[in-house]
Amino acid sequence: MARSRTAPGQIDLVTRYREVRGLSEALAAPLSDADATVQSMPDASPAKWHLAHVSWFFECFVLRDHVPGYAPFDPHYAYLFNSYYEAEGPRHARPMRGMLTRPTLEEIRAYRAHVDRALAAALPMLMPDAQALVLLGLHHEQQHQELMLTDVQHLLSLNPLEPALYDAPNALPAPLPGPLHWIEGRQGLVEIGDDGKSDFAFDCETPRHKTVLHPHALAHRPITNGEWIAFIEDGGYADAALWLSDGWAWVQAERIEAPLYWRRGDQGWTRFGLDGRKPVNPAAPVSHVSLYEADAYARWAGARLPTEAEWESAALNVAPTSGNQLDGSACPRPRAADGGSALTQMYGDVWEWTGSAYRPHPGFRAAEGAVGEYNGKFMSGQFVLKGGSCATPRGHMRPSYRNFFYPHQRWQFTGLRLAKDL
Amino acid sequence: MARSRTAPGQIDLVTRYREVRGLSEALAAPLSDADATVQSMPDASPAKWHLAHVSWFFECFVLRDHVPGYAPFDPHYAYLFNSYYEAEGPRHARPMRGMLTRPTLEEIRAYRAHVDRALAAALPMLMPDAQALVLLGLHHEQQHQELMLTDVQHLLSLNPLEPALYDAPNALPAPLPGPLHWIEGRQGLVEIGDDGKSDFAFDCETPRHKTVLHPHALAHRPITNGEWIAFIEDGGYADAALWLSDGWAWVQAERIEAPLYWRRGDQGWTRFGLDGRKPVNPAAPVSHVSLYEADAYARWAGARLPTEAEWESAALNVAPTSGNQLDGSACPRPRAADGGSALTQMYGDVWEWTGSAYRPHPGFRAAEGAVGEYNGKFMSGQFVLKGGSCATPRGHMRPSYRNFFYPHQRWQFTGLRLAKDL
Amino acid sequence: MARSRTAPGQIDLVTRYREVRGLSEALAAPLSDADATVQSMPDASPAKWHLAHVSWFFECFVLRDHVPGYAPFDPHYAYLFNSYYEAEGPRHARPMRGMLTRPTLEEIRAYRAHVDRALAAALPMLMPDAQALVLLGLHHEQQHQELMLTDVQHLLSLNPLEPALYDAPNALPAPLPGPLHWIEGRQGLVEIGDDGKSDFAFDCETPRHKTVLHPHALAHRPITNGEWIAFIEDGGYADAALWLSDGWAWVQAERIEAPLYWRRGDQGWTRFGLDGRKPVNPAAPVSHVSLYEADAYARWAGARLPTEAEWESAALNVAPTSGNQLDGSACPRPRAADGGSALTQMYGDVWEWTGSAYRPHPGFRAAEGAVGEYNGKFMSGQFVLKGGSCATPRGHMRPSYRNFFYPHQRWQFTGLRLAKDL
Amino acid sequence: MARSRTAPGQIDLVTRYREVRGLSEALAAPLSDADATVQSMPDASPAKWHLAHVSWFFECFVLRDHVPGYAPFDPHYAYLFNSYYEAEGPRHARPMRGMLTRPTLEEIRAYRAHVDRALAAALPMLMPDAQALVLLGLHHEQQHQELMLTDVQHLLSLNPLEPALYDAPNALPAPLPGPLHWIEGRQGLVEIGDDGKSDFAFDCETPRHKTVLHPHALAHRPITNGEWIAFIEDGGYADAALWLSDGWAWVQAERIEAPLYWRRGDQGWTRFGLDGRKPVNPAAPVSHVSLYEADAYARWAGARLPTEAEWESAALNVAPTSGNQLDGSACPRPRAADGGSALTQMYGDVWEWTGSAYRPHPGFRAAEGAVGEYNGKFMSGQFVLKGGSCATPRGHMRPSYRNFFYPHQRWQFTGLRLAKDL
Repeated sequence: MARSRTAPGQIDLVTRYREVRGLSEALAAPLSDADATVQSMPDASPAKWHLAHVSWFFECFVLRDHVPGYAPFDPHYAYLFNSYYEAEGPRHARPMRGMLTRPTLEEIRAYRAHVDRALAAALPMLMPDAQALVLLGLHHEQQHQELMLTDVQHLLSLNPLEPALYDAPNALPAPLPGPLHWIEGRQGLVEIGDDGKSDFAFDCETPRHKTVLHPHALAHRPITNGEWIAFIEDGGYADAALWLSDGWAWVQAERIEAPLYWRRGDQGWTRFGLDGRKPVNPAAPVSHVSLYEADAYARWAGARLPTEAEWESAALNVAPTSGNQLDGSACPRPRAADGGSALTQMYGDVWEWTGSAYRPHPGFRAAEGAVGEYNGKFMSGQFVLKGGSCATPRGHMRPSYRNFFYPHQRWQFTGLRLAKDL
Repeated sequence: MARSRTAPGQIDLVTRYREVRGLSEALAAPLSDADATVQSMPDASPAKWHLAHVSWFFECFVLRDHVPGYAPFDPHYAYLFNSYYEAEGPRHARPMRGMLTRPTLEEIRAYRAHVDRALAAALPMLMPDAQALVLLGLHHEQQHQELMLTDVQHLLSLNPLEPALYDAPNALPAPLPGPLHWIEGRQGLVEIGDDGKSDFAFDCETPRHKTVLHPHALAHRPITNGEWIAFIEDGGYADAALWLSDGWAWVQAERIEAPLYWRRGDQGWTRFGLDGRKPVNPAAPVSHVSLYEADAYARWAGARLPTEAEWESAALNVAPTSGNQLDGSACPRPRAADGGSALTQMYGDVWEWTGSAYRPHPGFRAAEGAVGEYNGKFMSGQFVLKGGSCATPRGHMRPSYRNFFYPHQRWQFTGLRLAKDL
Repeated sequence: MARSRTAPGQIDLVTRYREVRGLSEALAAPLSDADATVQSMPDASPAKWHLAHVSWFFECFVLRDHVPGYAPFDPHYAYLFNSYYEAEGPRHARPMRGMLTRPTLEEIRAYRAHVDRALAAALPMLMPDAQALVLLGLHHEQQHQELMLTDVQHLLSLNPLEPALYDAPNALPAPLPGPLHWIEGRQGLVEIGDDGKSDFAFDCETPRHKTVLHPHALAHRPITNGEWIAFIEDGGYADAALWLSDGWAWVQAERIEAPLYWRRGDQGWTRFGLDGRKPVNPAAPVSHVSLYEADAYARWAGARLPTEAEWESAALNVAPTSGNQLDGSACPRPRAADGGSALTQMYGDVWEWTGSAYRPHPGFRAAEGAVGEYNGKFMSGQFVLKGGSCATPRGHMRPSYRNFFYPHQRWQFTGLRLAKDL
Repeated sequence: MARSRTAPGQIDLVTRYREVRGLSEALAAPLSDADATVQSMPDASPAKWHLAHVSWFFECFVLRDHVPGYAPFDPHYAYLFNSYYEAEGPRHARPMRGMLTRPTLEEIRAYRAHVDRALAAALPMLMPDAQALVLLGLHHEQQHQELMLTDVQHLLSLNPLEPALYDAPNALPAPLPGPLHWIEGRQGLVEIGDDGKSDFAFDCETPRHKTVLHPHALAHRPITNGEWIAFIEDGGYADAALWLSDGWAWVQAERIEAPLYWRRGDQGWTRFGLDGRKPVNPAAPVSHVSLYEADAYARWAGARLPTEAEWESAALNVAPTSGNQLDGSACPRPRAADGGSALTQMYGDVWEWTGSAYRPHPGFRAAEGAVGEYNGKFMSGQFVLKGGSCATPRGHMRPSYRNFFYPHQRWQFTGLRLAKDL
């Protein structure tokens, strides 16, 4: 569960609430009722479902439990919009979320308004533990903002019309970044995990604890599309020796030959994004690659993926200032990384696969109650990603953040940064 | 392909066109954009897709081929809305029809209006062969009207809210029909197949041909829900001896225990329909049963299913006057069949499974060209259904009509009438 | 169930029993314990299982029910070796038959000897109804003899070593048969079904009944491998217009490009058989094709498949003298069909697909009791094959015989003969 | 790849070779040809395949590459018996290993003798790098000895006769072990990984490296069957809150209610083993549980699984003297762990699941060449198990050994020991 270092009361929760909730609606504004309803695969959820689920979170864990007299908007919604909280009772099956043509998008907007009114009225009177749940709910909603974008992108990619959700100006040609530089990392005992410097952390980021780093270096920037094309052209997808065994089986079964959304045409490679189909920009970080692909690339390059501890330790000196780019530009945007001696693009471009399995930090304890199902139960079979992508909301990136996905998944904005032993 | 006995010119095609096209829109009127977009299973199609596909049929086979200068509404639509005409080139994969959140329902309505304007202008000048294609297109659209209703019903059934598409008054309790009477059928050589008395027939209904009937009788009415409940209560779904081998495997794999959409509750059986969830009416014909179930019921009752020839031969004396009931009442509606000596409810209640495989009539020849893919290529693995259901448009029922589905399918309004050897 | 026209007593059941049982063992003689144990696919059964199951049939339906004091060889065998008789209680799951490494092949041979001793002792005293069951059991065993061969062939085909079970001399080059001749068939009312001229018929062959034949002709011989190669070379497997819709889906999903067991090499086509991998002989009837392929070929050739009635009516004048070829030669063997005016190769080469669904004859009644499960319950989704193949035992072929398989199955010796409307 | 601390020459390779190879044959002695041929699931391999594959390893990596003039026994075998070495070329598909009824078990025994003769002749002359490959091959064969036993056990468990492979005396009732004691582990910086004290280690055990241990304790013995029954009776398999999310999905999809091979009967729980079906002995360590089950049990018990480093660090003081029990007794055997202050049953009872994902040690480098595919490519999605089971050959257990399986797999002898934070 969430932990809030500073008492939530010291944060302006009212403003924060309004901002986060407002961003969700802004992101969903271009969606039609149908766009917001269809589920493109079991891994994804409809946008309407995201918008409702994050509201149910507030309704269930704050309003129902902490605001006497709160009348739920619709008693069916607890069943429809619970995601996976077993303790909260039975729920609509995940792969069937796309069957919910009713309630309509308009009704979900009314639901959100209902919850917002009740929470705005209640917020000043909430006790600290309930305020902490509101803060948790806002970070939860920020996670779903990113998922909503990537899920919509996946849906639209399956439409032969390949519609653009947002207009993005065709990016100016960016100069290609120069060669990789290697930045030596700390060695010996270091501390990682939530350091209390941000006002919030999920339970899985705790406790802060010591670990050992062995001699290593990290690349100063992520791998680019241009470098990925070289991997393709060198036969990277056809050389079993580069791949994890599970990855090789996946490549063959799914006939993988390039990152998700890429297509080879007469004019070279194109990719699909929220701005429609555009040429692949060699100066942008590669995105939409799986852990398997990232791992194979690293082996091809004579390197490896960083461990979570290496990445997090290195990130302690890098402020996540770059922020996300939900600003109409291409996502992720091309960058001419300066090639200096500092780590760049650690935040706001692509989530970076690490070679670390998503397992509990030493001494981890899940939160009590239903919100304790938030993280701990997913700790098998997945890998940790660090940083944050062009679709990650501002204020939702920090060194200790642990994103996690299965090694074959790649509909998120996922890329990689190389590491090597020294 | 279609054959039109009377020259189509003698039919008022303009009026017919307007009526049929108008009914499609009236049926779709209560649908939201999302309702019209989602595909609930590979067997079903979105309502929006039905509305577009039937228009593409006119655009492709009439306007493109027979109306010089016709400008297609959108060149992508041929790819999106071709159903299965291999000769018309590649097309959007059937199980992915539900991904088409764009074009919107409004855009499809505009597409329909575009086609309607062009066809209304062209109709008076069309040559007879093109007029025949218009007539075929109208019968094609009538088929899709029924499919659209059953597909929407299936979609809404998967929503835990079980929304009603139409309001239907709760049916007055109908008196239960009396016991079955047996009506002896013709024997010896009879003729079946299109007899030229209706103004239209699909190619698979031809040629008219002789066949032999052996001594038999048909029940005077379909099996009712009340009778089906007796089958359930007698353990019909648990007795392997009653079932075809494939049917028994299906019952066990799918855990079938009742007709589709039925649920057992504290108050007895209910069923879902376009009017929402309502108690099962024992006086209504049973519907939404598969061939496997119909066959097992017949064996349980010491009877069998009619052959297509028995049914069609018997129907020659029964005018399809009852018509369909797209009138806001329950579908199918309860009836107190009079128990006289005549066959009743042959049309307009439920499609009746026959024991005949859907194979070509002797001497069958498929039509030339793409429209020749209409029927012939489906002639394996399916069974013939006769009559017409409460969702079949008026004017779309006749003795020689051959509906066909796989033996496990049951999301159509499918029931049964018993037959026996004499 | 079986019907025996002549009282079984008039047949020398003792001799017949010894011959049939002995042939099973002779056919299985070259099999190792492992060869006889492995199940290559759910459709197939291990040879050991066949050998045991046919013995269980005698043990269960004759010895247990009609021979007081009979002690079963092993009480577990009823569970292990019941095939699909629901009335006989639970049984080992079909796809798990290959897990039965115990009992060993030697133990099954001992089981057979135990049953044979008991039956030999009992046979003279059996009442006619029990004798009829013995006769049924022998025909049942003959069916399994053919299945055992085709199942072993399938198993060995999956071994990269492609071992030959039997040595067969490389066939002398046979002269290619000349072009097809068309033999006009009867028209109007004909009778088909068991005519009482053979001493045995399965229940599904009854009753004899009238049907109508429309003007038609049959090809004087089956389609050859040479003709099939022309179909392949003309792109037959790639032209959707030739295929039933289900067949086209099958061709694409399974990437079918030739008959089962064929492989294209530098030296042309080869096929695998019980005699190992050999060149495809253009003079032999094509075998191991599915109904879908047979139907597509017929459409490509401007013809169609015969109906069951057409085939059976034509066969009434052809004695099944050719018999099967379990004699060490290639199977089916090349033949220079004489090109005369008579139908040739109706028996003993390949089972011939008809265009008739396997459904009951008018007036069909399944036998009482467990043996009534023999045929009737399989009457959905399958097509009728007529004649008999090179692997069909002598004495097991007659005009009214109804073999049946699903339209995609092709591991039997299945080919085709063309028909056309006149 | 293997590393051998002591020069292999100092080991009596000739004796070692004879012993290891002889044990494989002794273990396989009770198998029939069929027992040795059938593959019970894709995860398992036929015993015959194991016997041949380990010989192919010697033939390929030693005899072919290092012994001039060696004539392979059969050139097909490289294709048939390569397991997963992509660098060694194409190979027979893993799920089809059970189709290889030929070569027979006798032929495989002849193959083994051929390899043994050649290797015995060559061994004295081999250079150290080739000797290292022999040593690697022997450890490789020991791994397959255990797999062969567990695969055969799985196969026999699917036979309704539940045959026993070995006779084992019914174990005397063992006194139930007393309650768990907690043994505090080391804290702070420790070293794990191959320490050079054994004469062999696989590449994945290297390099030795520092890691940090946090305050913790380990249970002095594994969890017993008796304790597991308490977990079952407390509803452990039905309480979602105890399970990892993937584990809960697995429990529900597979309807898991007890360890593999357990069955509840009138007389209580029984389990199937190589000695047939026997009552579950409450004093024996629980075996055949998945990581998911082990993890759920630990959560139920208010504890957790050890990390690999905790286990390995603790094991440094425990000599693997207990050894395996391939001696005809029950496997694993019941033990009355003395309840003293020392860790017991660390080796020779059950492989113990750890909570550590199987990922490379810091600084890991895979061996060069095909043998480099041995371990590294499996480093995703699997968990580490430590110790060794009753089926692990003597001489094949050491602290740094890293066994690994997917979290749902449980046909190995897999159990657990609890850990907790202090």
